[in-house]
Amino acid sequence: MDKSKFRFKTSIRVRNYEVDWQGIVHNANYLLYFEVGRVEYLKHLRIAVDLSTIRNESRVVLVRNEIDYRSPARFDQLLDVYTRVSYVRNTSFAFEGIIEDAAAGTLIAENLGVHVWLHPSSGEPAPVNDRFKQIITEFEGDHLIVVNRALKSR
Amino acid sequence: MDKSKFRFKTSIRVRNYEVDWQGIVHNANYLLYFEVGRVEYLKHLRIAVDLSTIRNESRVVLVRNEIDYRSPARFDQLLDVYTRVSYVRNTSFAFEGIIEDAAAGTLIAENLGVHVWLHPSSGEPAPVNDRFKQIITEFEGDHLIVVNRALKSR
Amino acid sequence: MDKSKFRFKTSIRVRNYEVDWQGIVHNANYLLYFEVGRVEYLKHLRIAVDLSTIRNESRVVLVRNEIDYRSPARFDQLLDVYTRVSYVRNTSFAFEGIIEDAAAGTLIAENLGVHVWLHPSSGEPAPVNDRFKQIITEFEGDHLIVVNRALKSR
Amino acid sequence: MDKSKFRFKTSIRVRNYEVDWQGIVHNANYLLYFEVGRVEYLKHLRIAVDLSTIRNESRVVLVRNEIDYRSPARFDQLLDVYTRVSYVRNTSFAFEGIIEDAAAGTLIAENLGVHVWLHPSSGEPAPVNDRFKQIITEFEGDHLIVVNRALKSR
Repeated sequence: MDKSKFRFKTSIRVRNYEVDWQGIVHNANYLLYFEVGRVEYLKHLRIAVDLSTIRNESRVVLVRNEIDYRSPARFDQLLDVYTRVSYVRNTSFAFEGIIEDAAAGTLIAENLGVHVWLHPSSGEPAPVNDRFKQIITEFEGDHLIVVNRALKSR
Repeated sequence: MDKSKFRFKTSIRVRNYEVDWQGIVHNANYLLYFEVGRVEYLKHLRIAVDLSTIRNESRVVLVRNEIDYRSPARFDQLLDVYTRVSYVRNTSFAFEGIIEDAAAGTLIAENLGVHVWLHPSSGEPAPVNDRFKQIITEFEGDHLIVVNRALKSR
Repeated sequence: MDKSKFRFKTSIRVRNYEVDWQGIVHNANYLLYFEVGRVEYLKHLRIAVDLSTIRNESRVVLVRNEIDYRSPARFDQLLDVYTRVSYVRNTSFAFEGIIEDAAAGTLIAENLGVHVWLHPSSGEPAPVNDRFKQIITEFEGDHLIVVNRALKSR
Repeated sequence: MDKSKFRFKTSIRVRNYEVDWQGIVHNANYLLYFEVGRVEYLKHLRIAVDLSTIRNESRVVLVRNEIDYRSPARFDQLLDVYTRVSYVRNTSFAFEGIIEDAAAGTLIAENLGVHVWLHPSSGEPAPVNDRFKQIITEFEGDHLIVVNRALKSR
């Protein structure tokens, strides 16, 4: 992934209980770090991620995660977590994430997480919320890929 | 993924602390379920996964995980976790996994996990262990893809 | 704790990601094992622990946990988790738990968890539900301590 | 517990995956928060908690945890974690911890964690390391209770 395209970064320090018996961060914990990145990203853009909102209108679901493990993180290491929305399509969008060692810049892991917008009642794919699309477009600028395919009439 | 290719299955019951505030299993926990599948698979084939072995000869690392979330799992649900090795290449191999609802057969999630074999000292990619390859080939039979590329001479 | 007083047992196998960098189960995970014991105990007695029930009437809160670590559990170890309600008072009750190695009977950990019954609206301590008290009393028999203190008139 | 006796504080922000289906931090996660407090406390006093040290000389084990849950913590809440060593005895010492809401000062949870010093080879209780005792005494000052019982001659 191209780090120059990322406009948001947060930091995390590896906690001792996140390290497994090999002395390195357990592979599932990187997903949690990327999730912290997404949550902080949304908070930064004042997009509500609080419980009441999501419970009532839970319209966004995670449908796919890809993680590439580049080098292991270790106890007490300070990590930079870069987060961006890389594309917005008609009914879906994707987060990209990069984790680096904060001091040396060593690449630790990369993530792609695809989300789908759903009708709250029917559960069918629905158009991505316009206000969400607008906020993301303003923040990400030219790096954001917006795909507006003409939907087939039925 | 083609479930008919899987020859190993283990079962897991969703625990209450694995469910997040949306009332569904948190997305990172499916990685843990797939890992339980891999561990039980290796135990079934009497391939050592115990700590002493791995600490001394830690030659296998996970380099990539892909998870497709098909439908959410919920508290107390009994899940079937199918696991297989889908291919073995010169220095890498991949696990595939499928999680289904044990009663209704609903597809919950799918996983691909790519592992690389490393020289214990140099950390460079190394040929997949022959004994490992033999055990997997005998167990998986015709469904296993074995790729033996001629390595370039340097 | 006196194991002869326990009438309910469930089993758990230690998963690899529950083991920390010392090669033993991380101390917080025993709380999760005891919780599995409590959940299975309540299910066995057909006391609802499903989400809808608890969300609407969430009247029981955990107020105190005590854990004594007797010997460490390790990867792939099969554990027996014993669970009982040891006392019921006017507005509170307590779970006791014992974790043993299933094969050798070695004592792993002991737990006391104190719960308080709350008025769903005011949040003030409320009398323990009569039906709950009756089910527990019938199941636990003479080992259950029931304390009915005369509440002071105000 | 008496907060005025604590000389060390660290802060933690509640992450979304630490919240359970009740919308509050799961009870086992407070143990993890208190552990972060202990680790940061030891780091502050330059007492090694790194893996190599502990693997070779693993002489300290946690034998008891007590947690009192005072009020629930919620998603994105900033918490202050106070940590101190409250007493040092011949072969054991105890950490106390307090978690408060950082903004309002609301009491969230309290913890007592008892640790025992062990002979690395025999596994029998051993005298608390003198250097450790000295560092803690200097840092905690008069609030630390040091009990030097005359050990019975055998």
